[in-house]
Amino acid sequence: MSRFFTSTLASLEPYTPGEQLKRPDLVKLNANENPYPPAPGVAAAVAGTVEGLRLYSDLTANSLCSAIARHCGVSEENILCGNGSDENLLLALRAFCDENHPLAFADITYSFYPVLCDLLHIPMHILPLEDDFTIDLSKYCGLDETIVIANPNAPTSLLAPRDAIEEVVRSNPGHVVIVDEAYIAFAGPDASCVPLTKKYDNLLVVRTFSKSHNLAGARLGYCVGHPDLIADMNRVKFSYSPYNVNSMTQAAGLASINDEEYFRTVTAKICKTRDESAEKLRARGFRVLDSAANFLFVTSDKLACGEIFRRLRERGVLIRYFNAPRIDNYLRITIGTPEQMDRFFAELDAILQQ
Amino acid sequence: MSRFFTSTLASLEPYTPGEQLKRPDLVKLNANENPYPPAPGVAAAVAGTVEGLRLYSDLTANSLCSAIARHCGVSEENILCGNGSDENLLLALRAFCDENHPLAFADITYSFYPVLCDLLHIPMHILPLEDDFTIDLSKYCGLDETIVIANPNAPTSLLAPRDAIEEVVRSNPGHVVIVDEAYIAFAGPDASCVPLTKKYDNLLVVRTFSKSHNLAGARLGYCVGHPDLIADMNRVKFSYSPYNVNSMTQAAGLASINDEEYFRTVTAKICKTRDESAEKLRARGFRVLDSAANFLFVTSDKLACGEIFRRLRERGVLIRYFNAPRIDNYLRITIGTPEQMDRFFAELDAILQQ
Repeated sequence: MSRFFTSTLASLEPYTPGEQLKRPDLVKLNANENPYPPAPGVAAAVAGTVEGLRLYSDLTANSLCSAIARHCGVSEENILCGNGSDENLLLALRAFCDENHPLAFADITYSFYPVLCDLLHIPMHILPLEDDFTIDLSKYCGLDETIVIANPNAPTSLLAPRDAIEEVVRSNPGHVVIVDEAYIAFAGPDASCVPLTKKYDNLLVVRTFSKSHNLAGARLGYCVGHPDLIADMNRVKFSYSPYNVNSMTQAAGLASINDEEYFRTVTAKICKTRDESAEKLRARGFRVLDSAANFLFVTSDKLACGEIFRRLRERGVLIRYFNAPRIDNYLRITIGTPEQMDRFFAELDAILQQ
Repeated sequence: MSRFFTSTLASLEPYTPGEQLKRPDLVKLNANENPYPPAPGVAAAVAGTVEGLRLYSDLTANSLCSAIARHCGVSEENILCGNGSDENLLLALRAFCDENHPLAFADITYSFYPVLCDLLHIPMHILPLEDDFTIDLSKYCGLDETIVIANPNAPTSLLAPRDAIEEVVRSNPGHVVIVDEAYIAFAGPDASCVPLTKKYDNLLVVRTFSKSHNLAGARLGYCVGHPDLIADMNRVKFSYSPYNVNSMTQAAGLASINDEEYFRTVTAKICKTRDESAEKLRARGFRVLDSAANFLFVTSDKLACGEIFRRLRERGVLIRYFNAPRIDNYLRITIGTPEQMDRFFAELDAILQQ
């Protein structure tokens, strides 16, 4: 770092962007992206914004927030949009934690939570998952701390029951409980905590268009919560990046969330491919966790998972390997199209038969 | 604010978004937006990204940074892109200031600097402009603090000479000097400090696509500086919002910056309209500061400026009035198309003749 860099952030790890593999035959199953293109109406919606790009974007994202509210069965005042979930998580942690108010979360979960805590000087209270990677939510009850729970969790793919999360929310009335539902669309009905936001003023649900709405490259996430929580986050947002969601992304998100039929069809296809892929992996001797997401988390005792990752990579199939405590013999495999999964299994079989 | 909101930000002013006037005949001269649409190639460039929006955006913004580097006559490692200048300013202040390292800036300048300082708990060292709103840069020499200078300044529209800024940079070798060049395209040749970034490792120039590149709604800004400064800001960025610039905006920015001819033509038209408008205002008895930007900063002793603002607004012409110390009898008028300015003058004359 330069001699000008603030010493208060000296511990920040410099991040090295992952290399971009440029193979024409690459099968990219490493970032939990959706294998299908955006909803058909997105192209025209985006095109309709270009002439008007000379003007600032709508800083309240009014039309988009209304459509999201309809999709979620809540009111517009319950919604805040951001430049991806990462930004919304930053706004929430800046609003509801500080140097003296820690954030509690699992040891194995979305890796951006500790990064944000480092940046914002928020103490971390790490609660280890159980040996089978399930989360014992009774450990979060009455914790008296701000909490974030990814549900379904990543990279484990496991879903925690809504009743158990409700008990966490109910038993921590003095603190905000953030439920990160990036993958909730793939978890079936009655899994989401969004309906509970009407009942509890300390529950904030964070969602994204990156996974289930085919728009990772548009950068759009939203929060659902009590109007007072949304107002708090807006207070931070307006001091930070008032026009945080650009006009094209607002239009893309609106067209996407309004096409419920496309959303349902694509989500069902991914869930079907996921369940078939899980069976195929089990048939090959892998242990596959019960996924409620658009990826599988698997382990094997036939060949070290790090080795499987490397050999697949050489063959143009990119999945995710975490060289981290407790999960260094696991693989995270994003669900692609059936054709992409065929290629994945063909290369995997070639490796296993070597 | 809710009972969950961090007390460390209790002093943040809740921002009230300005009302959006919905009149079909509205002439909007209040946000220093460009009156001309984006470059002709932007529409196709954006359309080309939609199918790929299912994938995350390029988090290094590689092609865009290369094109900006060419435009600026520097190397790609000198460039960082962000979700608007507001975000880049946040990254810079987070990297180069902290609770014990203040930011120095003028009393009358871009109003977002004190907002960011409040959010980040950075002490402010406010240096008043001279009585004629010029900036005496000798007061910044040897200050031994991080400094931000908007040049041309807003809302005053005045340009400071590059030599004087260079002396500030040279005499503060232990601190970063940020030059905010949002409006530099309208200041003529040899005004920009970008060439000085090759000579000084403590100079950071901040620029935006919002004004001169017709893309306010796309949210795109960039910084030019020594590679070590850019690396410092990337260190913060990757802990904060790694994928901060979405794929559509990257494509729009690339098409826009590559069309130098359109940029020159549009900029020249605006400067011509600006100079003609300044003459017309002077002919009507206004005092008009010598503008090097795409707006005019004017005062009058015929009628209170707040009153002119309100009466123009009733007539569907929106300009900017700041009810702030020292400038509460001034108006900021964005330069529109010749047709928009004709309407502005027609309504102004009607008010003055009442």
